[in-house]
Amino acid sequence: MTDTVTFLHHPTSQPCRAVHQLMLETGVPFEEVIVNLMDGENETEEFKTTYNPTGQVPILVDGDFTLWESAAIGSYLAERFELPGNWLGRDMRQRARIQQYSHFHSTMLRRGAGAFFYTRFAECIWGPRDYSAEIAMGRYMLAESMPILETWLEARSHLCGDEISFADLLAFHEFVSHEAGAIIPSDEWARFPRTRAWFERLQQRPQARAVSGMIMEVGAMRRAGHMIPMTRRTSLAKGTAVKPGLPG
Amino acid sequence: MTDTVTFLHHPTSQPCRAVHQLMLETGVPFEEVIVNLMDGENETEEFKTTYNPTGQVPILVDGDFTLWESAAIGSYLAERFELPGNWLGRDMRQRARIQQYSHFHSTMLRRGAGAFFYTRFAECIWGPRDYSAEIAMGRYMLAESMPILETWLEARSHLCGDEISFADLLAFHEFVSHEAGAIIPSDEWARFPRTRAWFERLQQRPQARAVSGMIMEVGAMRRAGHMIPMTRRTSLAKGTAVKPGLPG
Repeated sequence: MTDTVTFLHHPTSQPCRAVHQLMLETGVPFEEVIVNLMDGENETEEFKTTYNPTGQVPILVDGDFTLWESAAIGSYLAERFELPGNWLGRDMRQRARIQQYSHFHSTMLRRGAGAFFYTRFAECIWGPRDYSAEIAMGRYMLAESMPILETWLEARSHLCGDEISFADLLAFHEFVSHEAGAIIPSDEWARFPRTRAWFERLQQRPQARAVSGMIMEVGAMRRAGHMIPMTRRTSLAKGTAVKPGLPG
Repeated sequence: MTDTVTFLHHPTSQPCRAVHQLMLETGVPFEEVIVNLMDGENETEEFKTTYNPTGQVPILVDGDFTLWESAAIGSYLAERFELPGNWLGRDMRQRARIQQYSHFHSTMLRRGAGAFFYTRFAECIWGPRDYSAEIAMGRYMLAESMPILETWLEARSHLCGDEISFADLLAFHEFVSHEAGAIIPSDEWARFPRTRAWFERLQQRPQARAVSGMIMEVGAMRRAGHMIPMTRRTSLAKGTAVKPGLPG
């Protein structure tokens, strides 16, 4: 089999950027395919049947093997390309700690993305409506998650230890989106000085900047009040509060 | 180090039962500690500081190593006790497939638990109120998840292949709770015959029955209209729709 994998993604997606950065940091050979999330390419039956029944990205294709879920992709890449142990764990305890984080992430910090999505994007899709309940839910998940990150960062320099790991990339790219959307005000950040310092350290990594350009541009456009044409019909199945009955 | 681990759990928790069954199926040596979820023992600051800042179970303690998140515990046990490969994967693709499922699970099927929780338990905690929005959210997540399981079970006998894996246990115990609460009516089940057959096959396993007795009893009590005294103050941070501002 060839050693080049195919990476289906979109740079506005936080989990996509985390995997993308992991591959750039470690030199995984890949070809990229941008999936047009903005117009719901990922929501077509063809896409769901071929790649992922949930319609989510990122997706990795390695020969006849197709894999989705960013955390599963990270672990797979670590085995497949024997990535340096810091990224997905050097021993079973560290691997478990990073997996623990990835699940905490999916159900806590990741769902804070609703604060960004419903503040900055929902209007582009469904027009001006009252999104305050969805935004409140996202802010609630952020408020539940950030003190936990802060506590961890009191004891160590990164989320799962004193080396950077894939857990840091997953978390970091949530905050990149919040930064792009100016979602977390400075007085809120002031309550989490270690998390802020960690975030700013990670921002300095060239590969972090390499994958974050588009979301920062899109965020700046939205903050300036420009609309972005988007026709995707459904809300996100995770990361944001799915709301039954939101207009299609 | 000793080979006996400590397992903190509660038998009404679906992820706890999945880990419990895994340990019984594979003969992992463990001592159990029941955490009194009903009265919110897991929500005390002492518990959160000692074990898990999210207050969730299951938790595994192995000497000086404390781990939470059921999927991370499963993977850790597989390495720690060299469990048979079917449970967490025989090769890197199978391991990745099971991890993929565990993340799909956390963000999709697991959140269907709200249908059970808000139908059968919420009233015991907060009294009679209108929980229809929370129940609708749980049912929505179930309705999104079940067709995907059905499709997978068209191609193979278990969720991640033709052998039972930890993915099956995670999913199975969600349906055990729905069964206990009579949440999924028979005409709904009729649309998912392969999933139903898979569920009934798994029900036959002695270790499945061994860990499910209490939830079936509690479910029967609630279906008969008996109240169960519960004083836990917060909603669940996952598996159900967290609602900011629900009365404490």
